[in-house]
Amino acid sequence: MTEREQTSADLTFTVKATDGKARRGALSMPRGTIRTPAYMPVGTAGTVKAMYMDQVRDLGADVILGNTYHLMLRPGAERVSKLGGLHEFARWPHPILTDSGGFQVMSLSQLRKLSETGVTFQSHIDGSKYELTPERSIEIQALLDSDIQMQLDECIALPAPVSEIERAMELSLRWAERCKSAFLTQSDHNARAMFGIVQGGDNEALRVKSANALKDMDLKGYSIGGLAVGEPQEVMLAMLDVTCPELPEEKPRYLMGVGTPDDLLKSIARGVDMFDCVMPTRAGRHGTAFTRFGKINLRNARHAEDHRPLDEKSDCPAARDYSRAYLHHLVRSNEALGGMLLTWNNLSYYQDLMQGARDAIEAAAYADYQAACSAAWERGDIPAL
Amino acid sequence: MTEREQTSADLTFTVKATDGKARRGALSMPRGTIRTPAYMPVGTAGTVKAMYMDQVRDLGADVILGNTYHLMLRPGAERVSKLGGLHEFARWPHPILTDSGGFQVMSLSQLRKLSETGVTFQSHIDGSKYELTPERSIEIQALLDSDIQMQLDECIALPAPVSEIERAMELSLRWAERCKSAFLTQSDHNARAMFGIVQGGDNEALRVKSANALKDMDLKGYSIGGLAVGEPQEVMLAMLDVTCPELPEEKPRYLMGVGTPDDLLKSIARGVDMFDCVMPTRAGRHGTAFTRFGKINLRNARHAEDHRPLDEKSDCPAARDYSRAYLHHLVRSNEALGGMLLTWNNLSYYQDLMQGARDAIEAAAYADYQAACSAAWERGDIPAL
Repeated sequence: MTEREQTSADLTFTVKATDGKARRGALSMPRGTIRTPAYMPVGTAGTVKAMYMDQVRDLGADVILGNTYHLMLRPGAERVSKLGGLHEFARWPHPILTDSGGFQVMSLSQLRKLSETGVTFQSHIDGSKYELTPERSIEIQALLDSDIQMQLDECIALPAPVSEIERAMELSLRWAERCKSAFLTQSDHNARAMFGIVQGGDNEALRVKSANALKDMDLKGYSIGGLAVGEPQEVMLAMLDVTCPELPEEKPRYLMGVGTPDDLLKSIARGVDMFDCVMPTRAGRHGTAFTRFGKINLRNARHAEDHRPLDEKSDCPAARDYSRAYLHHLVRSNEALGGMLLTWNNLSYYQDLMQGARDAIEAAAYADYQAACSAAWERGDIPAL
Repeated sequence: MTEREQTSADLTFTVKATDGKARRGALSMPRGTIRTPAYMPVGTAGTVKAMYMDQVRDLGADVILGNTYHLMLRPGAERVSKLGGLHEFARWPHPILTDSGGFQVMSLSQLRKLSETGVTFQSHIDGSKYELTPERSIEIQALLDSDIQMQLDECIALPAPVSEIERAMELSLRWAERCKSAFLTQSDHNARAMFGIVQGGDNEALRVKSANALKDMDLKGYSIGGLAVGEPQEVMLAMLDVTCPELPEEKPRYLMGVGTPDDLLKSIARGVDMFDCVMPTRAGRHGTAFTRFGKINLRNARHAEDHRPLDEKSDCPAARDYSRAYLHHLVRSNEALGGMLLTWNNLSYYQDLMQGARDAIEAAAYADYQAACSAAWERGDIPAL
């Protein structure tokens, strides 16, 4: 039995090895085990865009993310529940993490109105009105049958005044308490998790305050939210430097919506266990490949007559078997297969990067691994033909 | 060795069984054997839209079609040649049939000017000017490394005056001679074919005249063009009734751009061996599934909470393993996976339909097969839940 197949009746987290602050862990639950550090492909509306779920799994994903905001609007949480839950609906029988919906209410919906109670908004699809409260967010995530649920929080864009960051952070803490209460009414809550979300913007003191208040709630995991929202990488890393030490060692830590391969490795070095990001899937649909030697823009004319693959040493057919010339042609022609192949390649690269990180931490060689990855990115792509 | 793996150094066609006018044959060439009756998936611009080539092959396709018009504009015939030909470029090592480009010059390009020499036109992509002559069309098809090439012809929309139909048909005959001469300059022409194209619109006498003139040219195969261009099905079938008997028994017959499952079975009964059509792929991208029980529009709200698959008895995962509710959701949400799954389903259905036809002809039971298929289409889809 491989590690990913090991499950536990209750949700448990084990740190199996550490190297500096980097952690090699396993988050186990009835539907499977998430090997950490983990990158979670984003399955926004019940599909990882342009991928078959079998491919996503075969690349090494132990968990995917579903977006509460998208799914509550279409097809609707009650409908997904009636159809057997999100795992059954989307044909992904392995762990699923859902966000709270809050982030996308703020970024996508219209006529938002925020109060202590929650947030009302209009659907970006058809303008119909919804209310999302902490309790409703958790209820929706339960209807989706989510294994790892998120508290509703208020995530603000940076830069922002400290008073505004503090107000949103304090509101998020009060919502965390309400979400925890709602979560504990789920009959099988032992088999699942509800994570609290550390907020506090780019303010170290507020981050520390938020982390400690959430720690006192004794939640099953801790997300770090409100980063990668416009601030420089150094600010994000500085926030991780002050936040991670405040979080309990024995609980998983999830940095939301991050990021580039470099963001991931630097965050792992600071003690982060889990990531999600649309970058590999979105970039793939827009003609960009992530490889061991950095990003490649397949739209570029330099690839038009290049018979070489993206990376002949990759195990992923998309990276190994298709010429750059063909990928260039598909991207330029807006052919679906272009997005399919580049998404496949990019998710493969992200999973390989995480597998490498896990192996390196077990071998107590994480710093070397980071240095080797950085050197390869800096070397850059092979010269043009 | 299965039949599809048998090849021959020269291109050969064998009729292995007949049932009435329906023929079960094998068109063999170095890259593989096409089992006929055959449906050829359309790989317009070097990709069968939203499909991996491995999937296309696994469904039973022995040959795909490439569009000369699209490929000459982008990435360009000389470029494809430099990259090893279309088989290598698109990763399809099996037989490829190409059209002449003429049909799409007429339907897609701007500022067309037709003369005895050929046709000049502007690209629909960037407005650049091209000339397509019979000789250049064959040259392009050779650069693409096409196994089965088409003569350049003039295909006109119906209805049209007889004089216009006759003019275009006679021009097409003169172009057939020029294409044959050009084809015979290809060093390995014995391993390939150039098909002539019967024209003559909806006029029986002109169809007969065209077929006989082409027969006299002793070509390796005969296409029937200029049908399914707006006329009723009965007109198309009447043209097949007069055309097929004029064509040599020992040569393959290809009905271009046709059609619905019903069109295919009725045409096979009249002696047609090969088909291509964008219907299954295009319909799939637009939310329509072809099944044993007719067409299903997945956009329809009746599917929104239907957990049943399209066809639980299909061997195709897209038909068998995904709920209609999920397909409905994907189509409504414009998710790439919707088009991927429905295209897969539709190509699977078309290949299964042809496999059934081949089996039935071998068993001298083609009429029964046709009747059984028609009865199932008429029964229609399962009742809504």
